[in-house]
Amino acid sequence: MDELKTRILTEGKILPGSIIKVGSFLNHRVDTALLGRMAEEFGKHFDISKVNLVLTIEASGIALATMCAYKWGVPLLFAKKAKSDNIENGLICSEIYSYTYKKNVTVMVESDYLKPGNHVLIIDDFLANGEAIRGLTDLVREAGATLEGIGIGIEKGFQGGGDKFRKAGIDIYSLAVIESTENGTIKFRD
Amino acid sequence: MDELKTRILTEGKILPGSIIKVGSFLNHRVDTALLGRMAEEFGKHFDISKVNLVLTIEASGIALATMCAYKWGVPLLFAKKAKSDNIENGLICSEIYSYTYKKNVTVMVESDYLKPGNHVLIIDDFLANGEAIRGLTDLVREAGATLEGIGIGIEKGFQGGGDKFRKAGIDIYSLAVIESTENGTIKFRD
Repeated sequence: MDELKTRILTEGKILPGSIIKVGSFLNHRVDTALLGRMAEEFGKHFDISKVNLVLTIEASGIALATMCAYKWGVPLLFAKKAKSDNIENGLICSEIYSYTYKKNVTVMVESDYLKPGNHVLIIDDFLANGEAIRGLTDLVREAGATLEGIGIGIEKGFQGGGDKFRKAGIDIYSLAVIESTENGTIKFRD
Repeated sequence: MDELKTRILTEGKILPGSIIKVGSFLNHRVDTALLGRMAEEFGKHFDISKVNLVLTIEASGIALATMCAYKWGVPLLFAKKAKSDNIENGLICSEIYSYTYKKNVTVMVESDYLKPGNHVLIIDDFLANGEAIRGLTDLVREAGATLEGIGIGIEKGFQGGGDKFRKAGIDIYSLAVIESTENGTIKFRD
């Protein structure tokens, strides 16, 4: 998606550890009009008529996933990362390793909200190692729901997370795949 | 907002400790069409033409705030709750007590994204003791920005958080104010 790539090139910053910071428009300050257009791009790739649930993970994925669910007229479900007081029993859980927080994190949804009849499109703003998305695919499988695909805003292609899902035959579509950040220059996969 | 009150009465559950669970449509599984109509309700109360930034706090507030920012054509900024790797220096911070997690939590935004020229409408899905919202108002004040008001989905009126802001002369507007949950019955403030 050219508009997204242009925003990454003009506003993105490369931090130590190949962290790509896009907080000015995607995951801290959020350009919701851009998110609306990103949702439309996903709609060109995926057959949205098959999808009856958008699944994401807190926190920053919620903004993009909200716009997708709104545009497509389906509910959004966001997985939570830690047990809090207002979650009852009846959870579907998966353990992932969080590279951001450098520890294992449990991702969970209430089993009432993810069922065998759900046809799920997973949406997230960012994919690097793919642990968060792997956790979400675990939840879908454990619930007996059907995974229709995975839509990602920005994929860090050089970390291999996305290609793991491609090799597994999952329909994963990223609007911008960053191939390298060498010498401070962002290069996209064609 | 009658539609929201009806959803609370038909789908809400009261858990021990007067926790009101609305995870089926507001803050776990999310009805984004309802959120769009909630944004329109806020638009009837506040003068949105004055607002150039929507501010919320992760995680569940992001969905409603995204819909508001999208409908109003302004950016969204969501405060983060803990320092993570992809936040550089230059933070505006406030410490709050989280009743959910039973500990102090630092809420923060990058100072680049909250400036004196910003006219801010704070949006959150839920208000109970008001600590999270107090933290957000601290950030607005510390940044030298202007607070235009606070829009809340569901306010637990009996916990007093909202009335603290009203007494301070802040324009706070909640779409549903729950006055009591005695005997398992939800009563709304008129």
